[in-house]
Amino acid sequence: MAVRYELIKVCKQSGARLGKLHTPHGTIETPIFMPVGTQATVKTMSPEELKGMEAQIILSNTYHLFLRPGHELVAEAGGLHTFMNWDRPILTDSGGFQVFSLSNLRKISEEGVEFRSHLNGEKLFLSPEKVMGIENALGADIMMAFDECAPYPAERKYVEDSVALTYRWAKRCKEAHKRPDVQALFGIVQGGMYADLRKQSAEQLVELDFPGYGIGGLSVGEPKELMYETLEVTTPLLPVSKPRYLMGVGSPDALIQGSILGVDMFDCVLPTRIARNGTTMTSEGRLVIRNAKFTRDFGPLDPACDCYTCRNYSRAYLRHLIKADETFGLRLTTYHNLYFLLNLMKQVRQAIREDRLLDFQKEFMTQYYGSLHPTKAF
Amino acid sequence: MAVRYELIKVCKQSGARLGKLHTPHGTIETPIFMPVGTQATVKTMSPEELKGMEAQIILSNTYHLFLRPGHELVAEAGGLHTFMNWDRPILTDSGGFQVFSLSNLRKISEEGVEFRSHLNGEKLFLSPEKVMGIENALGADIMMAFDECAPYPAERKYVEDSVALTYRWAKRCKEAHKRPDVQALFGIVQGGMYADLRKQSAEQLVELDFPGYGIGGLSVGEPKELMYETLEVTTPLLPVSKPRYLMGVGSPDALIQGSILGVDMFDCVLPTRIARNGTTMTSEGRLVIRNAKFTRDFGPLDPACDCYTCRNYSRAYLRHLIKADETFGLRLTTYHNLYFLLNLMKQVRQAIREDRLLDFQKEFMTQYYGSLHPTKAF
Ligand SMILES: [Zn+2]
Ligand SMILES: [Zn+2]
Repeated sequence: MAVRYELIKVCKQSGARLGKLHTPHGTIETPIFMPVGTQATVKTMSPEELKGMEAQIILSNTYHLFLRPGHELVAEAGGLHTFMNWDRPILTDSGGFQVFSLSNLRKISEEGVEFRSHLNGEKLFLSPEKVMGIENALGADIMMAFDECAPYPAERKYVEDSVALTYRWAKRCKEAHKRPDVQALFGIVQGGMYADLRKQSAEQLVELDFPGYGIGGLSVGEPKELMYETLEVTTPLLPVSKPRYLMGVGSPDALIQGSILGVDMFDCVLPTRIARNGTTMTSEGRLVIRNAKFTRDFGPLDPACDCYTCRNYSRAYLRHLIKADETFGLRLTTYHNLYFLLNLMKQVRQAIREDRLLDFQKEFMTQYYGSLHPTKAF
Repeated sequence: MAVRYELIKVCKQSGARLGKLHTPHGTIETPIFMPVGTQATVKTMSPEELKGMEAQIILSNTYHLFLRPGHELVAEAGGLHTFMNWDRPILTDSGGFQVFSLSNLRKISEEGVEFRSHLNGEKLFLSPEKVMGIENALGADIMMAFDECAPYPAERKYVEDSVALTYRWAKRCKEAHKRPDVQALFGIVQGGMYADLRKQSAEQLVELDFPGYGIGGLSVGEPKELMYETLEVTTPLLPVSKPRYLMGVGSPDALIQGSILGVDMFDCVLPTRIARNGTTMTSEGRLVIRNAKFTRDFGPLDPACDCYTCRNYSRAYLRHLIKADETFGLRLTTYHNLYFLLNLMKQVRQAIREDRLLDFQKEFMTQYYGSLHPTKAF
């Protein structure tokens, strides 16, 4: 078994799980947020900076690496860890989400998906077997099964077929996976917003006995309440002894609520993407550093934060760098945003330890959003 | 006196000078290359990275900081050192070179220069007094006088007037400079490619007794041989006890030959600018990392280099990052190029110490350019 989940304790107040995930590249404390390094680099950051902010595991994208530089090249380099100089755990997604996002460019069959590269229009094909070959070549500690992610909204019939296909592909993935001793393959639960289909999908995948489970098809445009409702019926169907990974979710409120609903792992491009236009997450909520009111603000970005950015630079300097299109500005805002989410998860873990995650949630939501039921996206 | 030059020794073989420049923010070993941080940041780099590569002093641009974020703002922030989190020496240019480069956008008079901002077309005016006010507000350890840099080629009459104007402006700069105890003002020798005008300019400026001298109007399009000839007649006219700074020069061959001709300080955007399209300087010459032949080259960028980039990443990874427009690729190539030039100057200083700079020059030129008289720009 490549990875092993150890349940440390359950928060008496909220039901959230504190755990450890043991992997070939070290142990991760959960619940955890995973920074995204799409093209074998977390945008603007060095591995040393990621370690400095205590990133424990990062995610990289199979679809992007398959297109460029190609998985064979990464394998020749000694695998993704060596290629990108990152010796801590890595998780690779399956490329399914990206391929299905190319709505006009793809054709789904039982065998797999035909699509055109977004880079050069080249016609390509991915199947469960092909994806396993790619992910085995990349060599991440955790690899995700090739699934079909239904859009939102979607007809019941569409989702039924999607769940069935995802199950058949999950079986093929499991059979095609060549290195189960050093790479853990997670199955992905689908089922859209239909509780009974989620149940069916979860039961089918649990029957295949994966070392961990992704929860896919959420945060695809549905209202947040619906996401939480669906999550609430899904996580109890998954084995207590295995980690659960909610894919593509990373707003502060969802990280906390997701943890409460039993999720152990999260990833999202949000903190890095918004940082690149100067939008930051601070202890008092969202802060757009381009805003004119920060022109002569010589205080730190977030007075409550002790990250590299906040210890050394002023809002005025950050604003100057972002306005002047200077890369170092993007580095500083990216660093802070990632630190903010990693630190939030550290606080979540501490609150679980102290059986007070609901209290922490209330405190955080009030201070960050000014409301327990925020209308803002983040 | 804000800065003091200490001549340590003269190379018996080449005549190059080994020295120390004592400034309010520490002592610099010369000859030295200064990385350029145009907009209060050395593009893509952090101050810690600059220290890691042993950058001793950096340069920043008065014209750019005057336009954005404005010198008053920088002064309010506590000066440039505090604003950009750099506690080692800084040199600011006078903005003259940039303003005169806006050929269609400016009008020169005895009083100063009227020009339009390249950012928004706003009509602005700079005079010697205004520039001193700006540079005093920025607070660099070394500030340059406001001069007129003649183009190449230029008629003798034009250069004669330019030398005369530069002298009158240098006097006004000296009078307007408010903080000579903590900021050293350097005069700038002009005179184009006319040996007698160089002599006149040098004598006039030496008479004003500046704590150091810039050599301007070189590397403006003239053949390299002509630059060296002009340099050869200029440096002997400057006092042995004061540092000489050759402005805007930074190709490896010119750093060595300039040192031999008696220069102590250099700056250039070359290493950072070329890094951003993936062009690097290595011990075996120029290397364009985008080149297809590096696709599966898993060796370091420069096997003879021990910088952060070369110790941790492969050519294949660098090529991937640059092709994929990833910022981290620009960081890595920029780091290496700056390290390469800083390390070259360290070798130059060592060769002076050992009275063998001409030998070193021959070795370096043969290995880097494959010739003692390279035709390549760098
Ligand atoms: Zn911070
Ligand atoms: Zn190097």
